Amino acid sequence: MDFDALFQTQLDDLKGEGNYRIFAELERMSGSFPKAKCHDEDAPDQVTVWCSNDYLGMGQHPAVSKAMVDAVQAYGTGAGGTRNISGTNHAHKELEKELADLHNKEAALLFTSGYVSNWAALSTLGSRLPNAVILSDELNHASMIEGIRHAKCPKVIWKHNDPQDLDRKLAALPANATKIVAFESVYSMDGDIAPIREIVEVCEKHGALSYIDEVHAVGMYGPRGGGVAEREGLMDRITLIEGTLGKAFGVMGGYITGSEAMCDFIRSFASGFIFTTALPPAVAAAAQVSIQHLKASNSERDLQKQKVAYLRKRLDQEGIPHLDNPSHIIPVMIGDPVKTRMLADYLMQTYGIYVQPINYPTVPKGTERLRFTPSPLHSTDDIEHLVMALKELWKQCAISHAVA
Amino acid sequence: MDFDALFQTQLDDLKGEGNYRIFAELERMSGSFPKAKCHDEDAPDQVTVWCSNDYLGMGQHPAVSKAMVDAVQAYGTGAGGTRNISGTNHAHKELEKELADLHNKEAALLFTSGYVSNWAALSTLGSRLPNAVILSDELNHASMIEGIRHAKCPKVIWKHNDPQDLDRKLAALPANATKIVAFESVYSMDGDIAPIREIVEVCEKHGALSYIDEVHAVGMYGPRGGGVAEREGLMDRITLIEGTLGKAFGVMGGYITGSEAMCDFIRSFASGFIFTTALPPAVAAAAQVSIQHLKASNSERDLQKQKVAYLRKRLDQEGIPHLDNPSHIIPVMIGDPVKTRMLADYLMQTYGIYVQPINYPTVPKGTERLRFTPSPLHSTDDIEHLVMALKELWKQCAISHAVA
Ligand SMILES: Cc1ncc(COP(=O)(O)O)c(C=O)c1O
Ligand SMILES: Cc1ncc(COP(=O)(O)O)c(C=O)c1O
Repeated sequence: MDFDALFQTQLDDLKGEGNYRIFAELERMSGSFPKAKCHDEDAPDQVTVWCSNDYLGMGQHPAVSKAMVDAVQAYGTGAGGTRNISGTNHAHKELEKELADLHNKEAALLFTSGYVSNWAALSTLGSRLPNAVILSDELNHASMIEGIRHAKCPKVIWKHNDPQDLDRKLAALPANATKIVAFESVYSMDGDIAPIREIVEVCEKHGALSYIDEVHAVGMYGPRGGGVAEREGLMDRITLIEGTLGKAFGVMGGYITGSEAMCDFIRSFASGFIFTTALPPAVAAAAQVSIQHLKASNSERDLQKQKVAYLRKRLDQEGIPHLDNPSHIIPVMIGDPVKTRMLADYLMQTYGIYVQPINYPTVPKGTERLRFTPSPLHSTDDIEHLVMALKELWKQCAISHAVA
Repeated sequence: MDFDALFQTQLDDLKGEGNYRIFAELERMSGSFPKAKCHDEDAPDQVTVWCSNDYLGMGQHPAVSKAMVDAVQAYGTGAGGTRNISGTNHAHKELEKELADLHNKEAALLFTSGYVSNWAALSTLGSRLPNAVILSDELNHASMIEGIRHAKCPKVIWKHNDPQDLDRKLAALPANATKIVAFESVYSMDGDIAPIREIVEVCEKHGALSYIDEVHAVGMYGPRGGGVAEREGLMDRITLIEGTLGKAFGVMGGYITGSEAMCDFIRSFASGFIFTTALPPAVAAAAQVSIQHLKASNSERDLQKQKVAYLRKRLDQEGIPHLDNPSHIIPVMIGDPVKTRMLADYLMQTYGIYVQPINYPTVPKGTERLRFTPSPLHSTDDIEHLVMALKELWKQCAISHAVA
């Protein structure tokens, strides 16, 4: 059987649709973020990264890097085993305490990524709680969707950010159902924020377990970077808070926080937690220092807000349409994968501005976009340069049509 | 609803069965492996680790640590994005080339872990290839089982390491089936090795895609550490070779290798690849140096073999039963979770010997065991100390009954 031909057919279909993905090959330069070297042939040697999820630039923070270096020197490069079989290091336990404290919860549990934490936690809750039903916001992230699929329990999709719809759907469930409500705080592709208070109230009314993904919020919202739920004073009313160490915290890994019994339960039963090598202790140590820093320092958050507001204002002044939302994410909708790629290529090649075209399956077909994430480290010059480049592009007739 | 009570009930059941897991809290000490600090209350402050999957001690190799430190200093601590959205770093691409070369394949694809690589690759192949059927060895690892479940295609379980059974089951499939045969080289709990040549021949006879997990073999078998398939000269006859960077290579991460089209296909469609932050460039850089070292150096592999042979010989001399197998893994069967935990606790507390009790779900109930993995860095003294301790234990009547 010619397997390569089978693979190639589906790749060709992707290419035909304009959905084939080309990754930009970067070389990050610690100390120079958002500048990075670029190894792509057609691009300048140095580019400004406008789509990173290292939202606050903590990936180059000297204290975080030093923690990682020190830990490599002290502990070596790997954990040496799964958490059960020789892989639990002091650094993991310390980080778990730090995370529990960040969210004001009894306990936390580390995973190798945010993806794995969602997948493992939701599939374990949904498959092992008696009569479980998972109620999932229709725009939840792939990692949650896959976890819910894997749980094999009944699932109900509720309208995006619509507590009334959730209320109705919870009310329609049998009395003996164990209800799990899964949603995000900041939805990273539109940048909208869930009405967490209303959702939590609906959950409480129906005795449902509330599960929030704060992946795009931890580090950035709340007085200690505990996320939007911290900012709203709601952390103690949410059963499970999930987050990542790979975005605003600038390292890698994922976690859940909640009651001691819940974390112990998922620790004890989740395949995706049990059967995999633990995070390198150096990764855990670096993440802990990053969290500690952002618990105490507001300057990164404040500066990020300023930069986001400034870019929005400048886009408005120049008449460049962008999705309005209350978060740090600025989407510019294009609505066609080929045009989005074309715009991105032009920005990269002509201006050294790197913004990845966002296409299916990350967003629904027809909603392709460019997505800008200003960090505290983007200078006013960087922003002006971006606005000028977009203005040039928007002037061109073909493209203004693409955007219409 | 009292969720904690629901969690606690299932935790209590685990405890009742003796299957509740207690992780040893270690602090690795680079340069002192297999010695580690121990943070457990009842244990000595320093212990000898006898169950690590840092099989060759590469997790403390100076060149590997240096590569990680240098890369943190150059690139920072995190990748800053998913592979598609600003997360692809030069270090990832270099490592993928290194891995393709290691297995003599056209291409390789990195994942955040071996677990995720199996889960993502098998679920993508099984769900997207037309008429796919996955034939899975009955003792395959959890990460493969979950990937196969997730594929939702028909699956067929064949008898462990039995090419005849596989042959019969392949022959029984409809002519238009796309057959995927998934198996491991070294099975890490019994330490047995698959008859790869026979399996590959059966696959070829039926036109099946062969998928091998070499997680417990890469770095350790074959003249360049390409795994058992390299040793047997079979790499080019296997469609997909999967491995980890977290065990013999001493760092973290997972990968697949194979044809350009296959890797591109999985890159393009696998949710577990697409929707997650990429490995830190420093992790990739460290893994690459580890692979390069083990491609060129046989001394770690040779010394490991000597240490394994020596421990086996000494166990035989002292009449301590252990599972016979052709690999580097030495299982001592106990067959009861409570007794296995008791023995492990006694070894830890009395002798500072750390070997994790292996219980369900890692092994079937009734086959609980201790599992020793001698590394090149375990000294003769370490081995004599272990043998002496086991001899003491075995003398005690109650325990000799436990083992009977
Ligand atoms: C909402 C959401 N949850 C979870 C994840 C996964 O987190 P991680 O990158 O740590 O795997 C992502 C993105 O990567 C995400 O956007
Ligand atoms: C056979 C096998 N495959 C895959 C894995 C997962 O690899 P990783 O630890 O890199 O997630 C493991 C163990 O962890 C394993 O034993």
